[in-house]
Amino acid sequence: MTIHKHHSNFFEDFRIGQVIRHATPRTVTDGDSATYMALTGSRFASHSADSVAQGIGYAGRPLDDLLVFNIAFGKTVPEISLNAVANLGYAELRFLSPVFAGDTLSCESVVIGLKENSNRRTGVVYVRSTCHNGDGIVVLTWVRWVMVYKRKAEAEVAESHVPELASATPLDDLVIPARVHTKEALEAWCEATGSRRLWEEYAPGDRIDHPLGMTIEEADHMSATRLYQNNSRPHFDELQMRSSPVGRRLVYGGHVISICRALAYDGLENVLSILSIDGGTHVAPCVAGDTLYAYSEVLDRRTATSRSDVGVLRLRLVGLKNTPPIEVPALKVEGKTRGSNYHPAVVLDLDYSVAVPRNHFNGTRHA
Amino acid sequence: MTIHKHHSNFFEDFRIGQVIRHATPRTVTDGDSATYMALTGSRFASHSADSVAQGIGYAGRPLDDLLVFNIAFGKTVPEISLNAVANLGYAELRFLSPVFAGDTLSCESVVIGLKENSNRRTGVVYVRSTCHNGDGIVVLTWVRWVMVYKRKAEAEVAESHVPELASATPLDDLVIPARVHTKEALEAWCEATGSRRLWEEYAPGDRIDHPLGMTIEEADHMSATRLYQNNSRPHFDELQMRSSPVGRRLVYGGHVISICRALAYDGLENVLSILSIDGGTHVAPCVAGDTLYAYSEVLDRRTATSRSDVGVLRLRLVGLKNTPPIEVPALKVEGKTRGSNYHPAVVLDLDYSVAVPRNHFNGTRHA
Amino acid sequence: MTIHKHHSNFFEDFRIGQVIRHATPRTVTDGDSATYMALTGSRFASHSADSVAQGIGYAGRPLDDLLVFNIAFGKTVPEISLNAVANLGYAELRFLSPVFAGDTLSCESVVIGLKENSNRRTGVVYVRSTCHNGDGIVVLTWVRWVMVYKRKAEAEVAESHVPELASATPLDDLVIPARVHTKEALEAWCEATGSRRLWEEYAPGDRIDHPLGMTIEEADHMSATRLYQNNSRPHFDELQMRSSPVGRRLVYGGHVISICRALAYDGLENVLSILSIDGGTHVAPCVAGDTLYAYSEVLDRRTATSRSDVGVLRLRLVGLKNTPPIEVPALKVEGKTRGSNYHPAVVLDLDYSVAVPRNHFNGTRHA
Repeated sequence: MTIHKHHSNFFEDFRIGQVIRHATPRTVTDGDSATYMALTGSRFASHSADSVAQGIGYAGRPLDDLLVFNIAFGKTVPEISLNAVANLGYAELRFLSPVFAGDTLSCESVVIGLKENSNRRTGVVYVRSTCHNGDGIVVLTWVRWVMVYKRKAEAEVAESHVPELASATPLDDLVIPARVHTKEALEAWCEATGSRRLWEEYAPGDRIDHPLGMTIEEADHMSATRLYQNNSRPHFDELQMRSSPVGRRLVYGGHVISICRALAYDGLENVLSILSIDGGTHVAPCVAGDTLYAYSEVLDRRTATSRSDVGVLRLRLVGLKNTPPIEVPALKVEGKTRGSNYHPAVVLDLDYSVAVPRNHFNGTRHA
Repeated sequence: MTIHKHHSNFFEDFRIGQVIRHATPRTVTDGDSATYMALTGSRFASHSADSVAQGIGYAGRPLDDLLVFNIAFGKTVPEISLNAVANLGYAELRFLSPVFAGDTLSCESVVIGLKENSNRRTGVVYVRSTCHNGDGIVVLTWVRWVMVYKRKAEAEVAESHVPELASATPLDDLVIPARVHTKEALEAWCEATGSRRLWEEYAPGDRIDHPLGMTIEEADHMSATRLYQNNSRPHFDELQMRSSPVGRRLVYGGHVISICRALAYDGLENVLSILSIDGGTHVAPCVAGDTLYAYSEVLDRRTATSRSDVGVLRLRLVGLKNTPPIEVPALKVEGKTRGSNYHPAVVLDLDYSVAVPRNHFNGTRHA
Repeated sequence: MTIHKHHSNFFEDFRIGQVIRHATPRTVTDGDSATYMALTGSRFASHSADSVAQGIGYAGRPLDDLLVFNIAFGKTVPEISLNAVANLGYAELRFLSPVFAGDTLSCESVVIGLKENSNRRTGVVYVRSTCHNGDGIVVLTWVRWVMVYKRKAEAEVAESHVPELASATPLDDLVIPARVHTKEALEAWCEATGSRRLWEEYAPGDRIDHPLGMTIEEADHMSATRLYQNNSRPHFDELQMRSSPVGRRLVYGGHVISICRALAYDGLENVLSILSIDGGTHVAPCVAGDTLYAYSEVLDRRTATSRSDVGVLRLRLVGLKNTPPIEVPALKVEGKTRGSNYHPAVVLDLDYSVAVPRNHFNGTRHA
């Protein structure tokens, strides 16, 4: 007798309102942080040193926001996207509470939308996922939509619903964990980051070309994806991927986000933490050997109503492959949809918001 | 004057009864667990979250059994197998006590068998190794036999003895650290693993084709082998290996076991821990670029006399290279010896026993 | 509007006496140690087990000396060497206090020398850097000099000063943290290392050919360099490096030092810790695919005035690429300068001092 492993869910297995509790809770540790650093080169100061994090009001270094996201995302793969054609987009992602070494993360998802494609062989599933720590506190919530194969093209699909998703998180819904209430705290922070470029220094329309490039190796992206316990086959099985359209292993999109975010350190040194991701698209696949670059655009500069110490920047992080930002001078990208209007080098288009200290002890902008 | 490093032991250096205390005790940490996860993608629940491990009676997450095995094995390499032609097999491996972050592991070996080969240039050494923690508690014991070069073919070898090794661990000698005594504990465990397939669901003769494949990179297998402080040259020195029969670096066999075990998660989600390895053979070498797959056969289903909560499954884990399990439908493998009767894709044949919760609150099998 | 990130300092930006406080303090953890072990294969006993370290007077395992050095070095890159042509040398490096998991490291540098090159397009910058822990205790200090590009060849450079650097650390300035005051401690240490070769066994002129070789992969050296948060482009950006003289990514020199030091374990098992690096030169670049080997020469054997338990060995660690030490039998290397007098296989020439237990309970040398 042969037992065949059930191969996750197909499109016709999902129902609107269905709640899925994801397996394999995960205790995160300093080991995860060190491995993440080795795989991405992240240098953001609040995740690098306890003393720096304590200076801005944390109990200690929180884990990198995207490390938390990738671990949480990995939990949802077995039930949601093991039979996915493609991960189409993210929205309404919010970091609600910092995560520390020793926390145990668990996830669940609710199906909030379903739409069969006209070819009847695939459909788009929308899920809202939440990740909570061992105390039951929600640390992260997000929506993603994926195109998933049907088991049988002829299977009936009763429901069809495309959820409306917010294009930006209302300011009052953003949780800003860092505090920079005193001049001493601000000075210490700027010394820790080596930069005095604060919230006031960024204006909508600004563009920051991040100088560093990072070439991706198979071992790197697979190690990152394994760290997240993400078991999605296209990232690991070269033999099977030879018969795929790209012909080889694909780099997990979350690793692309992490690398681009790490590259975006230079020019955004004073980012305290990521607050939300309001939209994200993997515009094109990446493979080992690609060299990633990134530039950032300032979309908006916002003040949180109750906070004079920290402001919010809404940024667009654009990931490029094999083309430095300076060679993409006149990128015209409208909207967030995948399409021919993207420059061929673009692999990632992420619309996200971050917290940055305000220069509240000095009304003038630094030169 | 030149000091030449002594090049470990050759076959004629071993004596029956010789006790070898291995160097370099090792404190294991959360860093090892994170690195192991990044290199193998292991998802077994008891090693992933403190809360899950506590729910089945552990003080916290124990380290992955095979991480412990590979670290312990690495300790024995400098004195036992640095001059090995090949690592021929394992037997009587028993996990006797769980290992936790902060434990310091030390190893020693006793030579229990010696047999010169007829060519007089090599011989087979049998050693029983034990690994204990800082409290002196034995956590692991195992027998392995390796073919080792002689320094000089003409050297006399007085003794010859081939030990008798048990083909299966008696049930009473198995130590089952996990406890699933209450219905609540069982429910929580099944939720953590996402599977309700319990001990009763597996029957001798069952075969599980694990769906995932993993392509091996040089950086991955070398990092794993270095983590274990295993200094066996064939895994690291490409230049020297060019003149070896395979012509390039070989993947450490323990990494192959770890990868196959990680692949075997799907379909064996409810395994609590490995109890014993009763036999193991590296049937063929692996090199970087190989894609590993695995299938499992249920050899036996046993009940521990004093335990109604947990049962024992004896499994055969078969590792394959560059061939998915579905393409190896009629594998005929008899016995445990290396030989021409193996399908050419087989790289690993492991006979081991695991603990799985019993469905002791419900007499019927789940559908 | 486009914000361009300032591209670090060019030669004309430095001033003698200038103090630079480096950004991104770093809390080091067991995760760093595990990752370092996975990337280098280090086996030195004092960094491997708490019990062993405690047996020689430490509170617990200190981090590997070169892990500390590489993290500290990485901190200085953004301001000192992002525009470097080459890292020319090290001197007066001293380990002054051990570093433990949980410590937070911060660095600063003072410019101590400047010399423009005759081509006027580059100059050499000498900096003395110090790294301290969260208690303000200096753990490491070192001098390095780098050749840095000028922004504009015509820029005036007022000062010119080449500092005098000590060729060897005075014995009284060496800090020896390990203590092996009792016979029991010495016995336990030798058992932990598996070697009884103590300080008395090494004599000036001795040469140790280390047996192991290690082939470097892109993923390995990049992961190590990222772990150190070292953002120097030549190690990461394959695309840009194609137009460089070597035509591809270069391995960070600190990774070469770490690998050679790990290879040097065999034959130097009883080294307690590194005390100083009195000179170091990266003689030639390494790239992925190179196989590294190492041999050591004993330059001097010294006794610390107040210590009868531990002696000092001054060693030369020579790193080789693609050539085992045995094939470099008559290496003639005079002085420490880069030049044609090096064998073409040499990549590293490091003059450093280590602590080794003395055989103070037995006047005779072991056979």
